Amino acid sequence: MTVPRYVAPGVVASASSPDEPDDAVPFSAQEILARCDILATHSSRVGAIERSYLTAEHARTNWTVGEWMAEAGLEPWQDAAGNQRGTLAGPADDSPVLLLASHLDTVPGAGRYDGILGTLMAIAVVGRLESKGVELPFGVEVLGFADEEGTRFGRTLLGSCAVAGAWQDSWWELRDAQGISLRTAFEAFGLDPARIEEAALPREKVLGYLEAHIEQGPLLEDADRALGVVTGIMGARRFDLTMIGEAGHAGGMPYGRRRDALLGASELVTAIESLSRDNGAIGTVGRMQAYPGAANVIPGRAEFSLDLRAETDELRDRVWDLVQEHADKIAAARGLTFESVERHDARATVVGDRLAQAIRAGIAATGDPDPLELLSKAGHDAMAVASLTDYAMLFIRCGGGISHHKDESVIEGDVALALDAFEAAVLDLARDLA
Amino acid sequence: MTVPRYVAPGVVASASSPDEPDDAVPFSAQEILARCDILATHSSRVGAIERSYLTAEHARTNWTVGEWMAEAGLEPWQDAAGNQRGTLAGPADDSPVLLLASHLDTVPGAGRYDGILGTLMAIAVVGRLESKGVELPFGVEVLGFADEEGTRFGRTLLGSCAVAGAWQDSWWELRDAQGISLRTAFEAFGLDPARIEEAALPREKVLGYLEAHIEQGPLLEDADRALGVVTGIMGARRFDLTMIGEAGHAGGMPYGRRRDALLGASELVTAIESLSRDNGAIGTVGRMQAYPGAANVIPGRAEFSLDLRAETDELRDRVWDLVQEHADKIAAARGLTFESVERHDARATVVGDRLAQAIRAGIAATGDPDPLELLSKAGHDAMAVASLTDYAMLFIRCGGGISHHKDESVIEGDVALALDAFEAAVLDLARDLA
Repeated sequence: MTVPRYVAPGVVASASSPDEPDDAVPFSAQEILARCDILATHSSRVGAIERSYLTAEHARTNWTVGEWMAEAGLEPWQDAAGNQRGTLAGPADDSPVLLLASHLDTVPGAGRYDGILGTLMAIAVVGRLESKGVELPFGVEVLGFADEEGTRFGRTLLGSCAVAGAWQDSWWELRDAQGISLRTAFEAFGLDPARIEEAALPREKVLGYLEAHIEQGPLLEDADRALGVVTGIMGARRFDLTMIGEAGHAGGMPYGRRRDALLGASELVTAIESLSRDNGAIGTVGRMQAYPGAANVIPGRAEFSLDLRAETDELRDRVWDLVQEHADKIAAARGLTFESVERHDARATVVGDRLAQAIRAGIAATGDPDPLELLSKAGHDAMAVASLTDYAMLFIRCGGGISHHKDESVIEGDVALALDAFEAAVLDLARDLA
Repeated sequence: MTVPRYVAPGVVASASSPDEPDDAVPFSAQEILARCDILATHSSRVGAIERSYLTAEHARTNWTVGEWMAEAGLEPWQDAAGNQRGTLAGPADDSPVLLLASHLDTVPGAGRYDGILGTLMAIAVVGRLESKGVELPFGVEVLGFADEEGTRFGRTLLGSCAVAGAWQDSWWELRDAQGISLRTAFEAFGLDPARIEEAALPREKVLGYLEAHIEQGPLLEDADRALGVVTGIMGARRFDLTMIGEAGHAGGMPYGRRRDALLGASELVTAIESLSRDNGAIGTVGRMQAYPGAANVIPGRAEFSLDLRAETDELRDRVWDLVQEHADKIAAARGLTFESVERHDARATVVGDRLAQAIRAGIAATGDPDPLELLSKAGHDAMAVASLTDYAMLFIRCGGGISHHKDESVIEGDVALALDAFEAAVLDLARDLA
């Protein structure tokens, strides 16, 4: 047997034998981690994890996850947005449905647990309940969302927005780095844009939404806790920023006549750090590219991104105003033009009390009677689902707070506790309807 | 007939009918400018000029320029480095050879005159002398260098280094952005790396080297002069710079724990401007890219370039020391690692007195008895040839000092004057040997 490794060592150990260990206990933490290793091989890159929306890797992942759903007793199907879903019927046709979900896509150079772990835990919890013969008073739907990160089309939460009935027609014209529109990518994947509304769940059927996820921050580790209960999710806005100047010869053009777009962009990048930090917000420039991009040419254009988050939407919006003011000043001083396009705007959300109580009860059942409460600074599919139904989230400790990086790690014992807590949370909700 | 346009309007007017005007006077400024328009269509991109070393566009350009060489009375041939050359035999087998040259490659998003104009002027001067039946006391070789800009492999002056006998074995392993080695690209182009030395000229045969080139700066225009004589060429060093930090989630990772590589790089970009400017050097960061490059991921790596020039090599090297010191400080403060690799190091050179005198005499013959003297801040093939023979250069005014940009422009009247001056310079040298 192959012992699954929990810290990604660069290239995936199980890539050469993508079978899970024969002796893993069904629906155990060990099996889940082995399956995270398997999904890590469903990547567009060798030696790194990258799986974006409507790609061959996405299709392969849905197929693999669908098999695992079937094993757990779920009826697997792919919805009109490319989300992989698994349905466990309730006792009656009109039984409400509890949603257990996370996402299956990744950022470029990702770790193997962000989103994946929560999806596989949801499947495993259903499998555990089914194998024990538990009869729930509601139906369950497990959702593996197809696009949470927004890596390919720049707009996050596409999968969960489709399920929440919040899909917007303007998105069809979003384009990826190759210029392929979301509409074209849909069709190439075998989906019918005209049927997107079929992915949406009717509000009246839904009982609530639970999601398990790695923390993606260091607070649980700092507090020496395995699990935490989420109180809400920070709102985030994302922008494409551009500084436009004029290209010129790196030697011939004197400093006084330069309109160097990269210098303006670089000044703004450092200003974004201080403006965000000083005001208690979080601003990140993740993308930056200078054009035309030759060593001996003054950049005439710099394109970069801004991800801006804060505990309240008001604070976040105030910092964005400051960033814009600052950008305009830099541009004026350097003879540049500053442009911004908003790509994403998610409002801050808070969890549903009853659902959060179920998560708290679940964690308490694992021996931590007073779970750590955490405000999520990372965005999650739960934000999109919040427009459809109440949500709550269980956070799982990750090594060093590292995420969106190949060194993302979790401890098997924590995942085992998380499975127990997540299952107990579902049973806690079941008691209400019993 | 199509009237050639001298200011590039974005997409090339003559692209649809790549024939030169039937009624252009042979070897005239008008014809040269029409031919610049034709070569502008030999591009790897639609609507923009980009022609790099050992590409299909390079081959096509050599073929076209070879035809024009033959029309001017030159024997056209492609050398072992892919340079397009044209030979005019001297009166005897052991006659010395005067080199007239510039380059045929371009930066990405280039104008249509940088290098091209000088190469076509060299051909035209031979054509004019031939059509007048002038018998020179030396042979002439016109060279259209295949790689001056270094766009593809990061190392400039490859074509002229081959001719100067300064090719270095280590260059075979240089790689382009697709990972193709220079050796492989050579072979794919139909060249034999083992024969590279055949491109080199024997020192004892060479009389000197003259190059005409657009100024790529605003000084001639500021002084209201069409032409100038170059006194020397600034030395330039080029580096690939890298800041290495750690990728992480844009929301979850608190500021105190971030190791954001792009923030370090951005600080250094602005520091390079002030360190260069305050010390009278010129530093340009032309390339910049953040990795992994997603809006919601803290950059773990930033790769950028530095092009550093100064009037003396000593000053330039002192500023590079300051940049390194500064980079190390930034890296230390942010928990980053700073790395640099030198890609290019050209020493400052000065022109040969006799050859510069010929250029001066040539300009004087056009009615400007005391030509403006200019230090070239841009690098030129003449720098590489300086290790083989003396050189001199004629500069031609360009609009707004703009170069390495589609808006590069020259005035037809200036080109006509430049042709007269360049021809007169050749005749001035001929008098020495007559």
